[in-house]
Amino acid sequence: MGLIVQKFGGSSVATAERIKNAAKRIYDAHMAGNEIVAVVSARGDLTDELIGLADQINTDPPRREMDMLLATGEQQSVALIAMAIEALGHRARSFTGGQVGIRTDGYHTKAKIMDIGGEAIHKALKEDHIAIVAGFQGVDAEANITTLGRGGSDLTAIALAAALKADMCEIFTDVDGVYTADPRIVPDARKLDVISYDEMLEMAALGAAVMQARSVEVAKKFGVRFTVRSSLNTRPGTLVCEETEDMENVVVRGAAVQKDEAKITIMDVPDRPGQAARLFCELANNNINVDVIVQNLSRGKSATDITFTVPRNDMKLALKVTEAVCKKIGAGGVISDDNIAKVSVVGIGMRSHSGVASKMFSALAAASINIHMIATSEIKISVVIDKAAAEKALRCVHKAFNLNEAKKKTQ
Amino acid sequence: MGLIVQKFGGSSVATAERIKNAAKRIYDAHMAGNEIVAVVSARGDLTDELIGLADQINTDPPRREMDMLLATGEQQSVALIAMAIEALGHRARSFTGGQVGIRTDGYHTKAKIMDIGGEAIHKALKEDHIAIVAGFQGVDAEANITTLGRGGSDLTAIALAAALKADMCEIFTDVDGVYTADPRIVPDARKLDVISYDEMLEMAALGAAVMQARSVEVAKKFGVRFTVRSSLNTRPGTLVCEETEDMENVVVRGAAVQKDEAKITIMDVPDRPGQAARLFCELANNNINVDVIVQNLSRGKSATDITFTVPRNDMKLALKVTEAVCKKIGAGGVISDDNIAKVSVVGIGMRSHSGVASKMFSALAAASINIHMIATSEIKISVVIDKAAAEKALRCVHKAFNLNEAKKKTQ
Repeated sequence: MGLIVQKFGGSSVATAERIKNAAKRIYDAHMAGNEIVAVVSARGDLTDELIGLADQINTDPPRREMDMLLATGEQQSVALIAMAIEALGHRARSFTGGQVGIRTDGYHTKAKIMDIGGEAIHKALKEDHIAIVAGFQGVDAEANITTLGRGGSDLTAIALAAALKADMCEIFTDVDGVYTADPRIVPDARKLDVISYDEMLEMAALGAAVMQARSVEVAKKFGVRFTVRSSLNTRPGTLVCEETEDMENVVVRGAAVQKDEAKITIMDVPDRPGQAARLFCELANNNINVDVIVQNLSRGKSATDITFTVPRNDMKLALKVTEAVCKKIGAGGVISDDNIAKVSVVGIGMRSHSGVASKMFSALAAASINIHMIATSEIKISVVIDKAAAEKALRCVHKAFNLNEAKKKTQ
Repeated sequence: MGLIVQKFGGSSVATAERIKNAAKRIYDAHMAGNEIVAVVSARGDLTDELIGLADQINTDPPRREMDMLLATGEQQSVALIAMAIEALGHRARSFTGGQVGIRTDGYHTKAKIMDIGGEAIHKALKEDHIAIVAGFQGVDAEANITTLGRGGSDLTAIALAAALKADMCEIFTDVDGVYTADPRIVPDARKLDVISYDEMLEMAALGAAVMQARSVEVAKKFGVRFTVRSSLNTRPGTLVCEETEDMENVVVRGAAVQKDEAKITIMDVPDRPGQAARLFCELANNNINVDVIVQNLSRGKSATDITFTVPRNDMKLALKVTEAVCKKIGAGGVISDDNIAKVSVVGIGMRSHSGVASKMFSALAAASINIHMIATSEIKISVVIDKAAAEKALRCVHKAFNLNEAKKKTQ
């Protein structure tokens, strides 16, 4: 008998039928002898519908009120799941984030979890109820309702698993697990049985996997082992956990492509200390996440070009900020390009193996794909290329590292 | 400058456009120099949609979970109204029932308000925010979300007006006020400028007016003067308040018809003390509200017939209960009829005027309408008739008491 935190995403509770399926899943896990805490997202497109409605009323709605509005989606789901479990014959009790003591900071729409009380859940479990918790939400110190931003329900599940010291956390979704690459693009992509936190983090940050990086970070921080698995079948999914020595034998775990970035170049930046810092401070102050940064060598000039990528959604704001900095520091001008994509390979094995970058670049060169920018981290190599070549590049890299073949030394 | 509690029903916030209208109404009242607390219901048919969804999942859903589900409707409305007010350029802050300290008992789906904290509202008003409060809901001692049952948002508004010692409470709805009779049935029905709590209570209990009796009771108990008025125009509506001497000059204030009742007769009840009590105790234990009760005279027999009316929704249960009691006490049998209607006239003036009943019966007789049952209270006379004659009877009574003519002695 263990304590399992299960999380069901919006597609798993989109209709009455799916709500019943999810409830059955929860019920079965309970009847198998486990204590269950289920975290549930808003139904299907409900959140988008509510955002659309809000937009008709106020194109720049106060974020506190957005949270008040959107938190209702998850609240509806937990009530409906609890009803469905009761219909199966077991007692269930639903909770809002506030009711289970998920306390956050006051940063509406992107709040951070500060603390989880959990008393209400312990009480419910002790009384042999299945506890159903609204994902994505909490309350701040003044009892205002807050939401956790994209992927917030995963975060709720992971954080609850940590706070309750759960034996397992299961993230149910509409895919079978984490793949070596997006199977819609790479037909022979392979489902991974296991992936380390760090690899999953990189994959998540690349938008390649089913989870937001923030949730994986929390899981890593608190050592929460979790599986990503399908709500539609009983296959085991992918286990995400601390790395083992054996994992290092795989040099590249997966590959991913990201098409929602844009590239900004600030030209002829005077080559004085602090100019780059000034730019990136300003961008950070505007909550813009900068990804790849490349500063070209000053070719004997007293000025240099700095190029960086940002989420395409933030491009307009990033351009505004960059242009303002450009004027202040007397740089030459700003250009941008949102017709780019980023292809990356990820693997903790590359820490102890050489030649990964050269293999990747060679494969792309052989396919006549031109590389704009390169960025590397300890366990990731990314290249920025033309968007038109994105999917071809992913398939090409996937093949170069034999990712379609099950666990073996690929280099 | 006064403190006004305004309440907007579901039809007043059914669409984005109507939400903006309601917000404008609130904003205007604030800009006219008042502090505003607005209580809002769920949008249009949302509550019914949620009930329908729940029904697909569990035909007998736990009431706690129903409350959890339905409370989201009002929560969405308050967020949207707050956004709409902010779009007009004033600060607004939305609150759930729990957030403003509306504490109830634990009787889910029909909870009673025990206490209102109100600190959060005072704080918001002090900071020059317009406060928007979710109607219909509260929390019990264990922070479970409860709802107040039908008409719950009116109750929230009245109770808040009492707790905050508001100068006025305005119930906005889609009609111009309280009428002498339902204008859809009686074309020359007249809008009343003023009506006493007691008259409004009777009208509400008859389902004739725009409010539930419970809200009027609370208003009377705490002396909350309120108006019922249209959200679509600025006409003053109907003031509901304590009675004045002047009001007594009107013998009949209004007339109403009720078609959602059924009649049950238990025949040949042994004429021993306590038999009727036994029946009505059992009905009360099953939460069935019995309305008109008539016990026929024992015509020299040792048994009597008892006839009573109940809401048609409760007829099945009431029959079951009555049949069980019938067996236990050895009565002759149970018959029922849901093909009935009740027509009533209401007026505090009838306390000091005679001849009201005879005038009513004569008018019905002249129209060849047969009376099944008669019930009178201090300020109301009701007759039960065939349902087919219901609307004709209402028009006939309305005319007999000259209700279409403005304030004058009608007898």
